[in-house]
Amino acid sequence: MYQNTKAAFTKLKNNKFFELSVICVIIISALEIGAKTFPLSNTAVSITSLLDTFITVFFLFEISIRFLTDDNKKHFFKSGWNVFDTLVVVISLIPVNDSEMALLARLVRVFRVLRMVSVVPELRVLINSLIKALPQLGYVVLLMFIIFYIYAAIGSFLFSTINPVLWGDIAISMLTLFRVMTFEDWTDIQYETMEVYPYSWIYYMTFIFFTAFAFLNMVIGIVVNVMEEEHAKEKNKNEPSLSELKQEISELKSLILQLDEKQKQ
Amino acid sequence: MYQNTKAAFTKLKNNKFFELSVICVIIISALEIGAKTFPLSNTAVSITSLLDTFITVFFLFEISIRFLTDDNKKHFFKSGWNVFDTLVVVISLIPVNDSEMALLARLVRVFRVLRMVSVVPELRVLINSLIKALPQLGYVVLLMFIIFYIYAAIGSFLFSTINPVLWGDIAISMLTLFRVMTFEDWTDIQYETMEVYPYSWIYYMTFIFFTAFAFLNMVIGIVVNVMEEEHAKEKNKNEPSLSELKQEISELKSLILQLDEKQKQ
Amino acid sequence: MYQNTKAAFTKLKNNKFFELSVICVIIISALEIGAKTFPLSNTAVSITSLLDTFITVFFLFEISIRFLTDDNKKHFFKSGWNVFDTLVVVISLIPVNDSEMALLARLVRVFRVLRMVSVVPELRVLINSLIKALPQLGYVVLLMFIIFYIYAAIGSFLFSTINPVLWGDIAISMLTLFRVMTFEDWTDIQYETMEVYPYSWIYYMTFIFFTAFAFLNMVIGIVVNVMEEEHAKEKNKNEPSLSELKQEISELKSLILQLDEKQKQ
Amino acid sequence: MYQNTKAAFTKLKNNKFFELSVICVIIISALEIGAKTFPLSNTAVSITSLLDTFITVFFLFEISIRFLTDDNKKHFFKSGWNVFDTLVVVISLIPVNDSEMALLARLVRVFRVLRMVSVVPELRVLINSLIKALPQLGYVVLLMFIIFYIYAAIGSFLFSTINPVLWGDIAISMLTLFRVMTFEDWTDIQYETMEVYPYSWIYYMTFIFFTAFAFLNMVIGIVVNVMEEEHAKEKNKNEPSLSELKQEISELKSLILQLDEKQKQ
Repeated sequence: MYQNTKAAFTKLKNNKFFELSVICVIIISALEIGAKTFPLSNTAVSITSLLDTFITVFFLFEISIRFLTDDNKKHFFKSGWNVFDTLVVVISLIPVNDSEMALLARLVRVFRVLRMVSVVPELRVLINSLIKALPQLGYVVLLMFIIFYIYAAIGSFLFSTINPVLWGDIAISMLTLFRVMTFEDWTDIQYETMEVYPYSWIYYMTFIFFTAFAFLNMVIGIVVNVMEEEHAKEKNKNEPSLSELKQEISELKSLILQLDEKQKQ
Repeated sequence: MYQNTKAAFTKLKNNKFFELSVICVIIISALEIGAKTFPLSNTAVSITSLLDTFITVFFLFEISIRFLTDDNKKHFFKSGWNVFDTLVVVISLIPVNDSEMALLARLVRVFRVLRMVSVVPELRVLINSLIKALPQLGYVVLLMFIIFYIYAAIGSFLFSTINPVLWGDIAISMLTLFRVMTFEDWTDIQYETMEVYPYSWIYYMTFIFFTAFAFLNMVIGIVVNVMEEEHAKEKNKNEPSLSELKQEISELKSLILQLDEKQKQ
Repeated sequence: MYQNTKAAFTKLKNNKFFELSVICVIIISALEIGAKTFPLSNTAVSITSLLDTFITVFFLFEISIRFLTDDNKKHFFKSGWNVFDTLVVVISLIPVNDSEMALLARLVRVFRVLRMVSVVPELRVLINSLIKALPQLGYVVLLMFIIFYIYAAIGSFLFSTINPVLWGDIAISMLTLFRVMTFEDWTDIQYETMEVYPYSWIYYMTFIFFTAFAFLNMVIGIVVNVMEEEHAKEKNKNEPSLSELKQEISELKSLILQLDEKQKQ
Repeated sequence: MYQNTKAAFTKLKNNKFFELSVICVIIISALEIGAKTFPLSNTAVSITSLLDTFITVFFLFEISIRFLTDDNKKHFFKSGWNVFDTLVVVISLIPVNDSEMALLARLVRVFRVLRMVSVVPELRVLINSLIKALPQLGYVVLLMFIIFYIYAAIGSFLFSTINPVLWGDIAISMLTLFRVMTFEDWTDIQYETMEVYPYSWIYYMTFIFFTAFAFLNMVIGIVVNVMEEEHAKEKNKNEPSLSELKQEISELKSLILQLDEKQKQ
């Protein structure tokens, strides 16, 4: 009987309508979350409350089916997406009465929208490409962090007495430098320190130059990676390499030489 | 006789001077629209009014010729550009006396300038490339929308009491996040929320990081697409592929082997 | 004798030290222009005045030599750089006493610095690449202008009563839209119009989207151009094309077939 | 005995744990520098002071080992990284009592964090790529400087009476133009000068256009460089060139022709 149920569940899981209904429920849950940010009438509140229960039950049902129909249950939780889905569902099951926790419960429900990514394969590919790109960019990110750290240290040594709100300690200074990097009212910060240190524009100019260079490096790194992957794909199609062609020609040559040898005899 | 008229119209339509005069009238209509935004003397107003009638009549005449000389009248409205041209002409024919409608009539006349795109083929190619690129970028746009939606929901849950003008509901929050993405006075928003939630800089940093990544993905996607098209064009020219060369060499080999066989006999 | 003088001048023109001294004088003229922007003592003023006379005479001398040693004097003024150099030198010869004209005379002297570009060949290549790229980008620029024009017309129709300083007429509106494109305090403009037209954010969003797309198109256009040039350079080196290889193999095949024929006989 | 010590030191230098401990000490010195920017208790101050001595001694020890184990001591200081490391260590050895110098001593200690770059080879590669790219970009940087210089000269001639804080002399004007390039409140500057010179928007527009073009040129230059390097790497692998293939086929042809000749005899 278990086998039968499993087969029925597998059929259901692979059913196009079921897949579509999962996406629909995610969209409904997203709309519900959006609706909650507007001031609602009492009727609307009770409707969203009901809807919430329905979505929770539906997600619990869906994740159970996915778990039950998985042939290798040990491997189920090795996929980060499955772990994420389960966590989102389980946490939204915890009953919340406390008003303080209500905010947290709401926030967890927001992540239900992210389930869209775990359900639509094309979005999963995009996110995976982000995660795959991160370690490759690791050293550029490290270099950028070192630049930020050094400039933040210098900044808080020199400017902390000028404006402690912006340069109070190294953590605040790094936030201020991120602001400078986005060019957001950075000249106000610069003019303020230039009144005490007239040459402090060198500090800002070099910082902007170094971070711009590191950022450019990062972008070019990604572009080259993408190009190489495209190139590799191109190659793996069915085209022979030039080396293979050369090999072929060499074989031809030896054949002709053999022919020549035979004729001499 | 209808045949003769049609032939005459076709000749007119393909006439270089007629094409040029269409472009001229579009430019005149653009200048007229621009002139109307300046304060005008009574004489000038009556001139623009006359000009307006002339332009409307000319456009009506031109679209009629295009329609009449089309061999397959059913297909005429299958081209989006023809539908657009006809709509712009027809709507500007509706007489407007109401002062409320006057503004709308003015706006419709502005779209006459867009007829420049439907008349100059090179511009049409550019717009078509935009429309063609949209579905390919669909998933990146969807991902970006999900990121915006989640952050807007979180933002309006947490910050709506701090500043309802910026975080009142999810729609306003999305507008605020778009502002943050363009780096426009985003630190003012950040400092305001950091007074209540000192760690809210994490919210802004991760948002900027994710949208920057999604945007970069989009740009690289377009670049790779363009490159591949160029590559495909290159290939389709008249160059044989490496596979063809290998095929040729294999044929050579079999020819030599046959020669060898014959000599043995 | 004229021939001798010409030979001597040609020798001087091609002299490395002469070329270097031209660059030095340009740098000195740049420094002189920079120095004039600071408050100067009377001595310094008379020194810069003397320097100015010397630079003018030197440039006159140099351009004369370049003109005299040119073999084909008719072609001398066909080069835009020569025309530019001559204009800069001739205009700075006009005596200026009027105080109103003094500012203009100063501005003309600033363009002497641009002579650096006409003297250093590598910079000339960069500028030429800009001028060469312009017509190719012509249609994208035209499209961008049409987008600006339409949005400026709509903007001044709808918003001119809200803030005439920003949306008074179509010219001012285009300036305001350029400001929006650079994201400079664009939300202030948006919030102002949203008070009257709550949906005017659509106006700004679509504008930013269209200009961003047109700009992206422009950048990609330039990148693809550069790539193609690189590709073409690569090809023209000394590598045979795949078509040539195929031709060679075909000739081989016919040789073997001939051999085969002969043996049969 | 010296030989023995050297061998022992070489063994230590190449020890994985020693390399790791160097990185650890650099991280500790970075954390110490960061901690100093926060208000500290007396105990913490004395701990950081002790830590500082330890780090100085450790770095002195490490650089000595690196110097002693170098086979060619003359070449040791030819590497910029070694010179940098030695300078950082030596300068932090100088005892500082003066309160004025204390700030400078602190700043030098900040550069210890940069030792991370000299120790991690992957970061060294990134920095080297920056230094290698600089001369190639030299002419674009020069062109950009000329654009800045000319616009700054014009700006301070025309606008110095309008706002001496922004346009006082050529140096201040260049700083203001850098601000305009980053789009930071540039319209405020523009509106101010447009009150006196209504057409001064041309000045800003053309400046933004030229710098954007020069910047784009720079980025494309870097991308093309990177691509070419990738291309060259690809080629140098083990793939034969098309020329080699053609050579091979020619040899084949001559072999067949010889065969033909022999048969005739």
